[in-house]
Amino acid sequence: MLTPEWLNRILPDDHRLNAPADRSVGDLPAEEFLRLAHETAEWMAEYLASVGERAVFPNTDPGDIRRRLPASAPELGEAMDDVLADFREVIVPGLNHWNHPAFFGYFSVSASGPGVLGEMLAAVLNVNAMTWRSSPAATELEDVVTDWLRQIMGLPEDFEGVINDTASSSTMYALAAARELRYPEAHQGGLFGCPPGRVYASDQAHSSVEKGVMALGFGRDGFRAIGSDSEFRMDVEALRAAMRADVDAGVRPIAVVATAGTTSTASLDPIHEIGQVAREFGAWLHVDAAYGGPAAIVPEFRPLLRGWEQADSIVVNPHKWLFTPIDCSVLYCRRPAELVRAFSIVPEYLTAPDEGVTRNLMDYGVSLGRRFRSLKLWFVLRYFGRQGLIDRLREHVRLATDFAGWVRAAPHWEVVAPVHLGTVVYRFVPELGNGESADAANHRILERVNASGDAFLTHTRVGGRIALRLAIGNVKTSRAHVEGAWSALRAAAEAEVHPASGA
Amino acid sequence: MLTPEWLNRILPDDHRLNAPADRSVGDLPAEEFLRLAHETAEWMAEYLASVGERAVFPNTDPGDIRRRLPASAPELGEAMDDVLADFREVIVPGLNHWNHPAFFGYFSVSASGPGVLGEMLAAVLNVNAMTWRSSPAATELEDVVTDWLRQIMGLPEDFEGVINDTASSSTMYALAAARELRYPEAHQGGLFGCPPGRVYASDQAHSSVEKGVMALGFGRDGFRAIGSDSEFRMDVEALRAAMRADVDAGVRPIAVVATAGTTSTASLDPIHEIGQVAREFGAWLHVDAAYGGPAAIVPEFRPLLRGWEQADSIVVNPHKWLFTPIDCSVLYCRRPAELVRAFSIVPEYLTAPDEGVTRNLMDYGVSLGRRFRSLKLWFVLRYFGRQGLIDRLREHVRLATDFAGWVRAAPHWEVVAPVHLGTVVYRFVPELGNGESADAANHRILERVNASGDAFLTHTRVGGRIALRLAIGNVKTSRAHVEGAWSALRAAAEAEVHPASGA
Repeated sequence: MLTPEWLNRILPDDHRLNAPADRSVGDLPAEEFLRLAHETAEWMAEYLASVGERAVFPNTDPGDIRRRLPASAPELGEAMDDVLADFREVIVPGLNHWNHPAFFGYFSVSASGPGVLGEMLAAVLNVNAMTWRSSPAATELEDVVTDWLRQIMGLPEDFEGVINDTASSSTMYALAAARELRYPEAHQGGLFGCPPGRVYASDQAHSSVEKGVMALGFGRDGFRAIGSDSEFRMDVEALRAAMRADVDAGVRPIAVVATAGTTSTASLDPIHEIGQVAREFGAWLHVDAAYGGPAAIVPEFRPLLRGWEQADSIVVNPHKWLFTPIDCSVLYCRRPAELVRAFSIVPEYLTAPDEGVTRNLMDYGVSLGRRFRSLKLWFVLRYFGRQGLIDRLREHVRLATDFAGWVRAAPHWEVVAPVHLGTVVYRFVPELGNGESADAANHRILERVNASGDAFLTHTRVGGRIALRLAIGNVKTSRAHVEGAWSALRAAAEAEVHPASGA
Repeated sequence: MLTPEWLNRILPDDHRLNAPADRSVGDLPAEEFLRLAHETAEWMAEYLASVGERAVFPNTDPGDIRRRLPASAPELGEAMDDVLADFREVIVPGLNHWNHPAFFGYFSVSASGPGVLGEMLAAVLNVNAMTWRSSPAATELEDVVTDWLRQIMGLPEDFEGVINDTASSSTMYALAAARELRYPEAHQGGLFGCPPGRVYASDQAHSSVEKGVMALGFGRDGFRAIGSDSEFRMDVEALRAAMRADVDAGVRPIAVVATAGTTSTASLDPIHEIGQVAREFGAWLHVDAAYGGPAAIVPEFRPLLRGWEQADSIVVNPHKWLFTPIDCSVLYCRRPAELVRAFSIVPEYLTAPDEGVTRNLMDYGVSLGRRFRSLKLWFVLRYFGRQGLIDRLREHVRLATDFAGWVRAAPHWEVVAPVHLGTVVYRFVPELGNGESADAANHRILERVNASGDAFLTHTRVGGRIALRLAIGNVKTSRAHVEGAWSALRAAAEAEVHPASGA
């Protein structure tokens, strides 16, 4: 048979045939990857530059995207050009654009340019920083950048940092360390037969605290929500009373979680006072500063976190308000021995001659596999520098303060929580509305703004009533974007007051 | 003062000055990102094409990289070109190259070209698939691709998939669901006061099982390692006896974890028989197929996993043997109600009008934030197609089988575990060595091979003795790479037999 292999045996060297690329083994051919990587880089740059011109939230209903995709994987491989075309035509139109400068929902985040470059490189390297030996550079860079971040936030040097995927994981790991300290007998025997224990946080704390408590085997009763004051800060006397009552009833206080930047209203708990109460009862103090922690980089905001430097553990998420693509959550712990005791099991296939010389990051949590997350954070810290971060965080707080001023000055609108960081909570107050009709009006306003595509907002419930949130945190958000959101809100409220006759 | 702003007021339109880019706000300028993204794409393509020419493991000692980096973050922002230069000059020389075709350590993984393109796009989009509303396309694509993968592995359609970071997390989540089922009272009250419970796995199971058991509050006693047979498969009668003894002693069997592809020897437990025992005692059956699961895509390998289709939950890691960059671990569960019950807490700020219509992926585990991981898996499944995956997995097993043949045929070498998948476990047997000196010889051989940079290997302990592992799983690994590793091993063993006189 006249195969290329047969012909190549008789053809002179410089006339040999190239066999068609064998797609049965190997990767995407190198020259094709090069072309597609450049095309993808072009698309990414175009996306970053123009995402602000897209509708933030897509015009899509549940099931729309799924219906446009085949029910099964292809039998034979497809051309990457076709796959990328489907990405652009099917997936992108169904995205909620978190990297849009008018994305003000949840907490506004940024995949900044430097962070994205870091992720590109981490993807192609594909290293796994579980032990020093498995990835020396990734392990040591994680030491270095978590320490850099610690320094610029003004935390004492006995806080040791490790990067996890999310604050939910970081908080669960911190509470596991607290359990090691408060239930030393449970390390071997489990919680069976132990006196019940409890973790305390304010009624404004993130759901991840209760989730972590449940995961650790404490049950829903293992979490106690403490009331908060009119500014949504934990009521310290109520905390003390609850812990006292628990101790009297034979319940062991395990940990108190103070929040710096709650998800609902971005309020900041009085960490210093909470820490004093935690110490009175021998409980672990964990600070959920996932959102608010970066504020400590700015000198005039650092006092908002007073007392966090006395915590046992702190979580700060650079993927929230520090311009780093998700996922990147730093857990700082000044009792690493408890953390490691909760999680260190070293099987033979992971032992190495370097043991004891360096730390192995797998020992600090559940996940063994660990992406090279320090790379993007290093890029972000170096490109922006401490001063560049301060300038941007300050600007976000300034924009939030200005927005709050516009709301306060407008008839029928009110700001419902103090503005300390980049998040404003406010609502429309219809002239004749009672509570429930006001809630419905705010829901409709939210839907109208989100349907417009001009901005994306989310809501919360404050004092039993619906309120709207505007979270500023994207590195590309400018005054014009915030003004645009306010215009969209006023237009939507106008439709409440003067509904179009035909509607 | 002669500022650009002042000059621009008097200069004609086409002579206006460009103000220097204001680095106090905003992101890396768009044109600079475009240039750097192209440069980075170029570097990535070059890296992918030439990584095989690098030393796999770096010539580095603990602390080397750290010493080359400044102790603190820069005060002012730096040029990205300088940052990228440091990446190339300081970080890259300190990497263990997991994406190298001669990386045979741990489990060999691949960031394939299609997978890397997916990660590039995920980074710039930066969406968070916690609820449908937070990311419609990412939520629905995760539904679709986990179902595609389920189908090609031949699992029944009542297995619902969700993507986590690692198998450690997936297994912990599965065990939390098992706890919901076996300790319904603990959902509210915690494990305090409950009869003790236990999770069973073979003494070859991954350390993540015991880690998950500890995290969930069962303590070290909550895990029981069951002996394995001469082929490193769980001894089913020993399992039955242990569970019977526990029940008689008042200990509640919670779950049994069967492993398909153990980390030490890639052995596969008899899942079908284990499942029967688990059912006898009403225990949850979880299958850790993080490594071995993809073998089910290949028709002739699927029988190795017989019985897994009856499991309650299964974890399969496309970031191990399915050419997808880390992290990407799929947890399949056919009792999603228990999984969701263990983890679903929905605060007001995450409620949405879509509730009940779609699933919200945050309800299936601890982590609230969730990267757009389905994108890279979609790219991989489409580019390679089912047939392309089969061809590559088959080739890896063929290479492993060939390597085992060379070892068996060589004097003073032995294969110490059956070869079913892409991993071979073997050792050098010195002529006069007793056990401990043989262990030392194998350790020295390992160090010599790794120091050569020609291949990277890891070790394990089998039957009390050190053995070496060769794990084949990188999409670019060819016969030449495996032959190279074998040459390096023989040369290192030669140095044991005939040490150079001057050494």
